[in-house]
Amino acid sequence: MAHRSAGQSVLARVLAVLEAFDQDHGSLTASDIARRSGLPIPTAHRIVTELVESGLLERGDDHRVHVGVRFWEIAATAPRALGLREAAMPFMEDLQGITGQHTQLYVLEGREALVIEKLSARDAVVNFGRVGGRQPLHATTGGLVLLAHADVALQESFLSVSLRSYAENTPTDPTLIRQILAGIRAHGYVLCDGYVSAEAVGVGVPVRSPQGEVIAALAVVVPREVAHPLSYVSALVMASAGITRTLDRPPPRSRPPGFFPVAEIG
Amino acid sequence: MAHRSAGQSVLARVLAVLEAFDQDHGSLTASDIARRSGLPIPTAHRIVTELVESGLLERGDDHRVHVGVRFWEIAATAPRALGLREAAMPFMEDLQGITGQHTQLYVLEGREALVIEKLSARDAVVNFGRVGGRQPLHATTGGLVLLAHADVALQESFLSVSLRSYAENTPTDPTLIRQILAGIRAHGYVLCDGYVSAEAVGVGVPVRSPQGEVIAALAVVVPREVAHPLSYVSALVMASAGITRTLDRPPPRSRPPGFFPVAEIG
Repeated sequence: MAHRSAGQSVLARVLAVLEAFDQDHGSLTASDIARRSGLPIPTAHRIVTELVESGLLERGDDHRVHVGVRFWEIAATAPRALGLREAAMPFMEDLQGITGQHTQLYVLEGREALVIEKLSARDAVVNFGRVGGRQPLHATTGGLVLLAHADVALQESFLSVSLRSYAENTPTDPTLIRQILAGIRAHGYVLCDGYVSAEAVGVGVPVRSPQGEVIAALAVVVPREVAHPLSYVSALVMASAGITRTLDRPPPRSRPPGFFPVAEIG
Repeated sequence: MAHRSAGQSVLARVLAVLEAFDQDHGSLTASDIARRSGLPIPTAHRIVTELVESGLLERGDDHRVHVGVRFWEIAATAPRALGLREAAMPFMEDLQGITGQHTQLYVLEGREALVIEKLSARDAVVNFGRVGGRQPLHATTGGLVLLAHADVALQESFLSVSLRSYAENTPTDPTLIRQILAGIRAHGYVLCDGYVSAEAVGVGVPVRSPQGEVIAALAVVVPREVAHPLSYVSALVMASAGITRTLDRPPPRSRPPGFFPVAEIG
């Protein structure tokens, strides 16, 4: 990759360093970061050193660096991630209690579905979602729900390129996908039978903001042998309504005065 | 606050903008950020604009900005936060199934305990922890476990200043706290009876890395009426051992080739 630092702002270079980390590259050397970001090694090294000093990155015993707890702590204020997750969690635990399989919460990020939260039983059916992971919009339960409610421009641009198949039943034909999306908007749920794996069925519904906008998708994934996966639709719809209600009226956060922050203790 | 930008590196100014966000300040105007960071308003404005363009910050309908999903996604690669949480979650769900109250996972961050994960029943006893929130080391179950295994230098420096009381039973006397810490190291657990609230008892144990280093604390919080809170110690010890084992041998992440990332689809 060509070096990108000439003419690039310092902030852009910092972003390039941070964006070198992803789910498959959580621990990197400064040289790895230089290669993945396209920055010269001395530049990558200098930025990494400063980010380690700030705590946003941490250095392990093996001298590789990874994203630090301080970075995660700032990220925990993100309303579309942990804020939404906090409102959703009690309802997700209720759903998980009913299905005992997988319960997932997704938001749209770019042209993919990002898994914000996931509850799984240890003996549950095969499922490839993980928290912080991205999933294709056309093949996954959450992805299809989000695509159904996305801008028409995004839908058309997404459907204009060749779509990958992950299992025998993955929908890849744009006409079929448009029918699925229309069904989601008309009926308020989707049932994905073997779209990602022949063994699993997903059932998903949209989650709306108090203003009525679709802001997330909520889904359960169960084994294909389950007699009536559609029986989960009503539980999903109730959970989704509960999340919207919680976002509208967050429970009071009573706490002893000064319990957070406790900076004065230090 | 005096303006800090003179002589400060661009990276330091970016960090100052990001650090303006915390659990009580999740949504800010550029002027709020300037005030909280000590940066001149035009500087704060310029950095915010660039961070919004990158997706690390997002702008809401009300023109306030908050931490973006893209930022959270990078944070999700942090091994000490979501990596640890992924290993711990199945064991935390087992514990939560037994107690039906609160189950919490903490790491040491600076001179405080940071809550990395929390499971709570909706009708559980009062508890002030929240994911991404910080708790004082001397008053909370997780904090005491982490302090007991911290560097002696940190322990002594922490105990050298006046400690705040949150409830009648909060330990604030350094000699008493040193005894509690020695007990944790000798017995492998702590029982905190009414340290934060008169109604709640916490029981906590350390979580070790596969190399034997204490990297986290795991705790349950139950109502004081529970007859034998100590009966949870064995379940906590088993869960902690399970987390260490999982960190040592993470389950294989089988997935269809190319399922993540799906960038080629876009």
